[in-house]
Amino acid sequence: MGNADYSYPAENVECSHRVAIPPPQPFTKSFANNLKETFFPDDPLRQFKNQPLSKKLKLGVQYVFPIFEWGPRYSLNFFKSDLIAGITIASLAIPQGISYAKLANLPPILGLYSSFIPPLVYALMGSSRDLAVGTVAVASLLTASMLGKEVDATENPTLYLHLAFTACFFAGVLQASLGIFRLGFIVDFLSHATIVGFMAGAATVVCLQQLKGILGLEHFTKSTDLVSVMRSILSQTHEWRWESAVLGCVFLFYLLVARHCSTKRPKLFWISAMAPLTSVILGSILVYFTHAEKHGVQVIGHLKKGLNPISITHLAFGGEYMSTALKTGIVTGVIALAEGIAVGRSFSMFKNYHIDGNKEMIAFGMMNIAGSFTSCYLTTGPFSRSAVNFNAGCKTAVSNIVMAFAVMLTLLFLTPVFHYTPIVVLSAIIISAMLGLIDYNAAIHLWNIDKYDFVVCMGAYLGVVFGSVEIGLVVAVMLSVLRVLLFITRPKTAVLGNIPDSRIYRSVDQYTNANNVPGILILEIDAPIYFANSNYLRERIIRWIDEEEDRIKSSGESTLQYVILDMGAVGNIDTSGISMFEETKKTLDRRGLKLVLANPGGEVIKKLNKAKFIEALGQEWIYLTVGEAVGACNFVLHTYKPKSTTDQSEPWSNDSSNV
Amino acid sequence: MGNADYSYPAENVECSHRVAIPPPQPFTKSFANNLKETFFPDDPLRQFKNQPLSKKLKLGVQYVFPIFEWGPRYSLNFFKSDLIAGITIASLAIPQGISYAKLANLPPILGLYSSFIPPLVYALMGSSRDLAVGTVAVASLLTASMLGKEVDATENPTLYLHLAFTACFFAGVLQASLGIFRLGFIVDFLSHATIVGFMAGAATVVCLQQLKGILGLEHFTKSTDLVSVMRSILSQTHEWRWESAVLGCVFLFYLLVARHCSTKRPKLFWISAMAPLTSVILGSILVYFTHAEKHGVQVIGHLKKGLNPISITHLAFGGEYMSTALKTGIVTGVIALAEGIAVGRSFSMFKNYHIDGNKEMIAFGMMNIAGSFTSCYLTTGPFSRSAVNFNAGCKTAVSNIVMAFAVMLTLLFLTPVFHYTPIVVLSAIIISAMLGLIDYNAAIHLWNIDKYDFVVCMGAYLGVVFGSVEIGLVVAVMLSVLRVLLFITRPKTAVLGNIPDSRIYRSVDQYTNANNVPGILILEIDAPIYFANSNYLRERIIRWIDEEEDRIKSSGESTLQYVILDMGAVGNIDTSGISMFEETKKTLDRRGLKLVLANPGGEVIKKLNKAKFIEALGQEWIYLTVGEAVGACNFVLHTYKPKSTTDQSEPWSNDSSNV
Repeated sequence: MGNADYSYPAENVECSHRVAIPPPQPFTKSFANNLKETFFPDDPLRQFKNQPLSKKLKLGVQYVFPIFEWGPRYSLNFFKSDLIAGITIASLAIPQGISYAKLANLPPILGLYSSFIPPLVYALMGSSRDLAVGTVAVASLLTASMLGKEVDATENPTLYLHLAFTACFFAGVLQASLGIFRLGFIVDFLSHATIVGFMAGAATVVCLQQLKGILGLEHFTKSTDLVSVMRSILSQTHEWRWESAVLGCVFLFYLLVARHCSTKRPKLFWISAMAPLTSVILGSILVYFTHAEKHGVQVIGHLKKGLNPISITHLAFGGEYMSTALKTGIVTGVIALAEGIAVGRSFSMFKNYHIDGNKEMIAFGMMNIAGSFTSCYLTTGPFSRSAVNFNAGCKTAVSNIVMAFAVMLTLLFLTPVFHYTPIVVLSAIIISAMLGLIDYNAAIHLWNIDKYDFVVCMGAYLGVVFGSVEIGLVVAVMLSVLRVLLFITRPKTAVLGNIPDSRIYRSVDQYTNANNVPGILILEIDAPIYFANSNYLRERIIRWIDEEEDRIKSSGESTLQYVILDMGAVGNIDTSGISMFEETKKTLDRRGLKLVLANPGGEVIKKLNKAKFIEALGQEWIYLTVGEAVGACNFVLHTYKPKSTTDQSEPWSNDSSNV
Repeated sequence: MGNADYSYPAENVECSHRVAIPPPQPFTKSFANNLKETFFPDDPLRQFKNQPLSKKLKLGVQYVFPIFEWGPRYSLNFFKSDLIAGITIASLAIPQGISYAKLANLPPILGLYSSFIPPLVYALMGSSRDLAVGTVAVASLLTASMLGKEVDATENPTLYLHLAFTACFFAGVLQASLGIFRLGFIVDFLSHATIVGFMAGAATVVCLQQLKGILGLEHFTKSTDLVSVMRSILSQTHEWRWESAVLGCVFLFYLLVARHCSTKRPKLFWISAMAPLTSVILGSILVYFTHAEKHGVQVIGHLKKGLNPISITHLAFGGEYMSTALKTGIVTGVIALAEGIAVGRSFSMFKNYHIDGNKEMIAFGMMNIAGSFTSCYLTTGPFSRSAVNFNAGCKTAVSNIVMAFAVMLTLLFLTPVFHYTPIVVLSAIIISAMLGLIDYNAAIHLWNIDKYDFVVCMGAYLGVVFGSVEIGLVVAVMLSVLRVLLFITRPKTAVLGNIPDSRIYRSVDQYTNANNVPGILILEIDAPIYFANSNYLRERIIRWIDEEEDRIKSSGESTLQYVILDMGAVGNIDTSGISMFEETKKTLDRRGLKLVLANPGGEVIKKLNKAKFIEALGQEWIYLTVGEAVGACNFVLHTYKPKSTTDQSEPWSNDSSNV
C-alpha cells in the first residue's frame, strides 16, 4: 500500500509544498488581536466605521438605548399587540410578584414594586423584544436562604429589607460591570446542562418550601435541603391544617389543568396566563365570605397603597452585613443574568433578531440598580412570564411599559383587594410555575447524547436538593470546568491508517477500513500541548510505540522506522509542550526511530521555530500533510532499504518526481 | 481554481469515501477506557500480563520496592562509586540540613535527623538512581511561614515542633495517596513556567530572610514579603552587627567562588560540594578561638547527641491546630513533590532510564510518613544535592544509604563539633544555594518563546516576593488554568484557502499563497466545542460570514453559497456545542447558505448522529476532507449555476466520476 502512492504521479507535485511559518507579527499587534478576540468577539464598533460624527453620535445613543432605534418605527398596530400582551403579563405579574416576594421572606408589596420600575428601565435599554421583566423564584429563594443565614427576616425585618435592596444594588453593579467590561462570557460557564439541573433542583426546593404554605405551618426550617425540610414537616404533623391543604390542592389542580390546556393548544395561552389572577380573586372572595382566615388559612393581610418609596438612603453600605449583601448580590446577580440572557436569546432565535449579550447585561444591571433605589429587589427576565408575553403576541418592549402601568394602577388603587388573598393560593401558583421548570426530557436528552453533561446536570440537581442552591451551582461549574481541564490533561491520541485508494489518513478506531502503513506509526494528537498534558503525551507516545513494536514482533512485519505525529489538531503549544517534543525526539533517536511532523499549525510552527526545535529536527522532516510525510518516509524506506535509516537525513532533497 | 479539481480524474475516486461513524461501544466499556486513560495512562499492569503467579508476586514486590529489582545486580564497582557520592552528599547534607532547619524555625538537629531515616526509606522504594534525599529551602520556609502564623516558634517551641511533624505526616499521606490513587497528574498543573518563577521568588524570599542572620539581628518580621522584610531591616539599623556581616560576606564570597569553579569545570564538583562543610569547620574554629559569640556572632549552640527520637506519639491529631498542620502539609507536600519529581525526571533523562511518577509519589509519601514518626520534617529530592550526587558519579540509591550512615555517625559522635558554628555561615550557605535557583536565562527563554508562559512565571515570582509563597503559587496556577480555559473559551478560527496546485486547504494567515475559493467560505475551528465557547463560536462564524460577504460585495465576486466547517481539530463536543450547530444551521438556512462539514472526528460524529443533527443536515453534506467538500460544492455550483442552490440537496448522489 505504501507503493500505491507512486501510482499517482500527478500528486507527487504536492511534495514540494512546504509548511509555512506565518509571517512574524509585532508582539503588540498580536496581543491587541488576542484582546480583541477575547473581549470584543462581536466587533461592536464595526457599524461606527467610516461614519460622520453626527451619525456616530446617533448610533451611540441608539446603542445604549435601543428604544431610540426601534421607537421611530413604532406603529399603532404594534401598540395594539403590545397592549394585549402587556395586560396579560400584568395579570400574571401581580400574583407571581406577591408570591415570590413571600418566597424571599420580603413584604409582599415588594413584588409589585419590582414589576413597576425595572420593566420601565428595561424597555429603554434592553434589546430583547419578548422579554418580560419581573422577579424570579430561584433568585427569591436564594435571597431568602443567603440573607436568612445572617439576619432573621421575622426578628429584624427592616435590616433584612435593607440588605435585600443592597444585594439588588450589588447584583446590578455586577451585571452592568460584566457588560461594560465585556466579561459576559463568564455566564457561558453555566452550561446548558448546568442550567437544566440547577433549575430542576431549584424548582424542587421551591416546591418543598411551599409545603409550609399548603400545610398552613407556622414554624419552618430555614434550611432548603430535602432532608431538613422533610424532617421539619414530619416532626409537626399535629400542626397540619386540612382547610389550607384542601384549598391549596384545589387551586393547584385548577392551575395545572389550565396550563395543560395551554400547552396542548398554544392559542389558549390566556387561560394559563389568567389562571393565577383568577385563582387569587376566587381565593380572596372565598376567604372573605367564609372567614377562613380564622380557621387556619393564612392571608396576605394589609398591603400599603401607593407607589414605590425611595430606598436609596436605605442601602446598607459599610455595615456589618455588607459582605453578606455583597455575596448574595453576586450569586443572585449571576444566576438572574444567566436566566435572563438565556431567555432573551431563545426568543430572539424564534423571531430571528440579534441580541447582544453584553448590552443585555448592562440593561439588566441598570434596571437592578434603579430597582434598588426604588424599593425593588432582584429582577430579571423570567422564562414563564416571557413565554406568556411571546404567546400573547408582543411586538416590542412596550409590553413591559404596559405591564408597568397596570401594576402602577394596582399599587395606587387596588392593593386592598389582596388583603384576603390566601397564602396557600400563592403557594399553589408557585408550585404550578415550578413544575414547568423540571425538564425531565432535557435530562434524558443529555443522558442519550452526552453522559458527562448528564453528570453535570445531576450534580447541579442533587447539589441543590441535598445541599443548597450555592453548593449545587459550585458543583456543576466545577464539574463543567473539570471536563475542560480533563480534555486538555488527557487528550485523545489515535493511530492513523490509510483509507484504501487514497492518500487520506484517518483514525483506525473511527475508520475500520483504514490500514496501517508498514514501518511507520502515525499518531494524531487531539488537543493543544500544554503543561497539563505534556508529561502524559510523552508517556503515551512512548507507549504507542511500545505497543506497536510488540504487535510488529508478534506479527513479523518489517520493523518500525518512523513515527509521524499529525499536528493538525494541535491548536497551540507552550514551553512545557516544546520540552516534551525535545525529550520525545531524544528518546526516539536513542531507539533508532525518526520523528516526523505533519501539518503543524501557525502558532505551533512559530514557537517550535523560535525554540530552535525545527533546526534540531530538520526542516525536511516536517510535511504539510500526513500523506506527504508517509510518501517521503516510504521513499527512503524503499530506496535505501538495505542501509540503516538513521543516517539518511534528507529525503526532501530527493525530488520525488524522479521516482 | 475550483475547476482545477477536475483535472485530477484519479482523485475523484476519493469522493466515494464516507465519513465513518465509529462502531458503537457499550457505555461501560468506553467509560472504563476513559478511566484507564485518565488514571493508568502508563498501563502499569502491562508487565504482569500472561505471567505465572510466582513471577507476578515477584514483579509485584519489585514494583513496590525497586531495590529488589536492581539489588541482585549490584556490584562492588557500583559500591565504590556510590560510596564516594554518598560521602560527598553527606558533607553537603549536614550543614544544609542545619541551615534549612533554622530557616523552618525548627531545632537545628532536625536537619540531621531528616537526613538519616528518609534517605533509607527512599533507597528501598524510590526508582530514581540519582536523587539525593533531604530537606529543601522552599518547603522549610513554607513550614515556617504557614505554621508561624498560628503558633510562635519561640514562645511555644514544643507545639510548633509537633505541628511540624504532623504537617510532615499529612504531606506524606497526601503524596502517597496521590500516587496510590494515580492522581499524580495534579502535579503537572505546576507548569515549568510556574516552577521557574516560583523557585526564583522563593529563593529571593529566602535570601531576604537570611539578612537576619547576616546582620546579626535579634528581632525580625514574621512576614516573608519584600516590603515587610525591608521595613523590618531598615527600621533597626542601629542593631546591625558589623562582625557578623563581615563574616557572612567572606564566607558567601568563598562559597560563590567555589561554585563558580565547579560550574566552569564539572570535574571539580567536589570543591563546590565540600565548600559548605569547609565553611562550617572554618567558621566554627574561628569562633572557638576568637570567642566571637560574645561579639555579636550568634552560634548554633548545644546539639543533642544521639539518633532520632521516636515522635509518633507527638503527632497533633484532633487538636486545635490540626487544620493548620493539614493545610501546611498539603501545600508543602505538593511543592516538595513537584520539586522531587522534576529533579528525578531530569536526571533520568540524562541517563536514559524510566521514572514512574506515581511510584515516586508513593516513595516520597512513605518516606515522609516514616520521617514524621522519627522526628523528621518534610524531605524531598532537592536539586542541589541531587546534582552533586549525580556529578559525584552515583550509580544507585545506595549513595543515599551511605549518606544516611555518615549522618548517623555524626549524630552519634560529632554533634559537639557544631556548637560553635556561627549562624551567619549557615546564612551564607543558604544564600549561595538560593542564588543558583534564580534562573534568569529560563525566564528570558520563556519571554522569547511564549509570552503567556512568561506572564505565568512573573506572576509566580511577584506573587511570592510581594505577597507570600502561597499567594505566588495560587496566582501562577490560576494563570495557568486560565490559559487553558481561555484556549477553550476563545478558540482560534481561521479561513482556509487552497494551496496552489493541490487539493490541500490551509489557513490563509499561515500560508500566504493559499487562495480563497469563490462562493465558498471554509472555516477551521481549532478546539473542542463546549459550553464555554459555543456562544462565541456561533457569533464568530456569523461574523466571518458577514465579513466575507462585505468583502465579496466590494470586490464583485460571485455570491457566497457554501460555508464549509473543517472539524479536523474539534476533538469533542457537548450538548451546548450541538445546540450551537443547530442554531448556526438555522441562521445559515435563513440566509440561503448551505452548511457543510468536513472531517468530523469519531466522538463528534457519534454525538451529532445521536442528536439527529446529521439527519437534519443531510449525510450528503458531510465529507471526509475539505478538498472533497469543495469538490462537491463546486460541482453543484458549476452544474446548476442558474438555479437557486437552496433546493439542491443531494450533490452526493451525483457520481463525480461522470464529470
